[in-house]
Amino acid sequence: MLYTQDKVIVPLGGFVHFPRQNLRTPGPTPVPDDIVQAMSEPMINHRGPEFLELINDSTEKLKQVFMTQNDLFILTASGTGALEASVVNTLSPGDDVIALTAGAFGDRFCDLAEAYGANVKRINFEWGSAIDPEVVRRELNKLPSTKAVMVTHNETSTGVTHDLEAISAIVKDEFDKLLLVDAVSSSGCIPLPVDGWKCDMVGTASQKGFMIPPGLSFISMSPDAWVAQKESTMPKFYFDLDAAREYLAIGQTPWTPNLSALYGLNLALDQMLEEGIENIFARHTQIGDFTRQGAKDLGLELLCQDPARCSDTVTAIKVPSGIDGAKLTTLMRKEHDVVLAGGQGKLSGQIFRIGHLGAVDESDIQEVFTALEKVLPQVGFRA
Amino acid sequence: MLYTQDKVIVPLGGFVHFPRQNLRTPGPTPVPDDIVQAMSEPMINHRGPEFLELINDSTEKLKQVFMTQNDLFILTASGTGALEASVVNTLSPGDDVIALTAGAFGDRFCDLAEAYGANVKRINFEWGSAIDPEVVRRELNKLPSTKAVMVTHNETSTGVTHDLEAISAIVKDEFDKLLLVDAVSSSGCIPLPVDGWKCDMVGTASQKGFMIPPGLSFISMSPDAWVAQKESTMPKFYFDLDAAREYLAIGQTPWTPNLSALYGLNLALDQMLEEGIENIFARHTQIGDFTRQGAKDLGLELLCQDPARCSDTVTAIKVPSGIDGAKLTTLMRKEHDVVLAGGQGKLSGQIFRIGHLGAVDESDIQEVFTALEKVLPQVGFRA
Repeated sequence: MLYTQDKVIVPLGGFVHFPRQNLRTPGPTPVPDDIVQAMSEPMINHRGPEFLELINDSTEKLKQVFMTQNDLFILTASGTGALEASVVNTLSPGDDVIALTAGAFGDRFCDLAEAYGANVKRINFEWGSAIDPEVVRRELNKLPSTKAVMVTHNETSTGVTHDLEAISAIVKDEFDKLLLVDAVSSSGCIPLPVDGWKCDMVGTASQKGFMIPPGLSFISMSPDAWVAQKESTMPKFYFDLDAAREYLAIGQTPWTPNLSALYGLNLALDQMLEEGIENIFARHTQIGDFTRQGAKDLGLELLCQDPARCSDTVTAIKVPSGIDGAKLTTLMRKEHDVVLAGGQGKLSGQIFRIGHLGAVDESDIQEVFTALEKVLPQVGFRA
Repeated sequence: MLYTQDKVIVPLGGFVHFPRQNLRTPGPTPVPDDIVQAMSEPMINHRGPEFLELINDSTEKLKQVFMTQNDLFILTASGTGALEASVVNTLSPGDDVIALTAGAFGDRFCDLAEAYGANVKRINFEWGSAIDPEVVRRELNKLPSTKAVMVTHNETSTGVTHDLEAISAIVKDEFDKLLLVDAVSSSGCIPLPVDGWKCDMVGTASQKGFMIPPGLSFISMSPDAWVAQKESTMPKFYFDLDAAREYLAIGQTPWTPNLSALYGLNLALDQMLEEGIENIFARHTQIGDFTRQGAKDLGLELLCQDPARCSDTVTAIKVPSGIDGAKLTTLMRKEHDVVLAGGQGKLSGQIFRIGHLGAVDESDIQEVFTALEKVLPQVGFRA
């Protein structure tokens, strides 16, 4: 039996039907109807001429969104897969790596590099605050053997956008180290000029700014990263980007690709390029401002401590003292079809999060606040 | 611009439309319309109650198709990802492994284990012939330090089904070694009782017998494999099945899963269980016989040298002497909308292949032969 909203919705043997919710998790994000329809096209031979056009066209459009002329690969995996590719294709066991973390996803990136034997120096910043570029300079001065710096551009777990431009200026211009970037919840939403900021490896996923379901991830790779790839001895097979490059040269992928998502991606990229990258950034800035202002108007407090670094893709709001955060998000879902995300790791129960990225406009966020106005008093909150 | 069949089908900025072909590659296979529709359901929170029901229900149904009570995990990756999981979760660098190969996918499995540092002894069999279980016994006697035996159940590149039951009796009953199985083009189509044949790790993918698009893979893991997992030192993160188990216990996946394909999978599994596993096997046997007989009736020769081991999911046919195989498959596609697969690796140009697995019936195969009757004379073949 399958259930949703605590009601049985379908017995074994039938369709799974999910109600149309206002899905405000910071990924997966809602998929526009025309993209859903594009994904319904029939299967094709992934080693045939139709696929060659699809993968080449999609890759070139993606490069425009990434603002890069670097190589770029579309992987059949979720975002963590692209991040694994960034690590195993550039590093060797024992390499010194400085990993900057201020949240659950920064920590995950560290865990990943450690799992493959990198010698990871974790630089921890308070969850909810931004990475201090001065600390990055100090740590790089202390550890000249550093091979790479790893950073999460937009920390989804706290709603903080780190100052990647300033970090890059130090890592690349002053120290000339590799820069590996987790851009899962930033790419395609907020400014990240991959070439302009000299990012060597940038990984992101399909279910955030790109408006399609989870199942694909994207990774760009600079010439410096290719040099590192030649020396890298971390084992790799599924995420071997040398194989990806060899196959892309003949319009294929090494392993059978997620065709449906690729159909959707191709249309989503057309829509993004038609809207214009700068206009997409402006829309996310506007909606980020709208969300933060709306939360404050309700008497709520943001987790992000620096207004200049609050994320325009996800807002983390502190659960008011004495309030049951799980009860709040459950009521929002059950009574108003608004799906919020809770806190992760050590912020579990401390915050709730509103995603505002991808196919989103102000009316989606206004619905959240309209529902919060009803639910907050129900859980005992008085502003 | 996107092209198909050498005609422009859509300019930048529009939908990708692919014609409905008779897609007879051995994966991806055609997706039934109701499954396509199921995949169009809206996104949900992958850390919420709807997802918990979806993943638990789908996993339990998959176990029925696998005929196993072992743990089973649904991964967001293509089949090679599941095979990587089978290796990195059971082995350590330097482990002695016997790998049985008689084709491109057997070779790929070897390459994968070698990439992660296993000491792989490749036992090569002629492409088109079946693995000889006697050789497996002899090699195991010669190499008592063997930790695992790796085998491809159905070799997609040659159309041969290896005698996994006999191989298992030797590997498990006589020598008690780990048995890692590539079941990408067999699972859900032809008999593979995972528990009955004591297979420790069995990996397969969504785009073959399971009738959904590529983008998911499935891996079952025995208690013995879990023991090996505890000792295994191969690095792993995205494919770490310990993380998969930990998350599945709370109705989640470690990384954001391919939701659309999961919606399709759930319905596909209902349909498979309704048809009945034994009936699915019988249908594939019947259609395998039909395909082989049809090829012979046209005066063509099969690659598979042992009638008892010809695959019921894919048939490899020798390109007749003096005939241009590429011209043949191109004419089939362009003039008859029938998409065949060519040969891989050293069989490139030597064979063409007809897939007959998943949502397939005799009329699909009859169309292939009707077209071949017209195309074969065009390329100069006289039976």
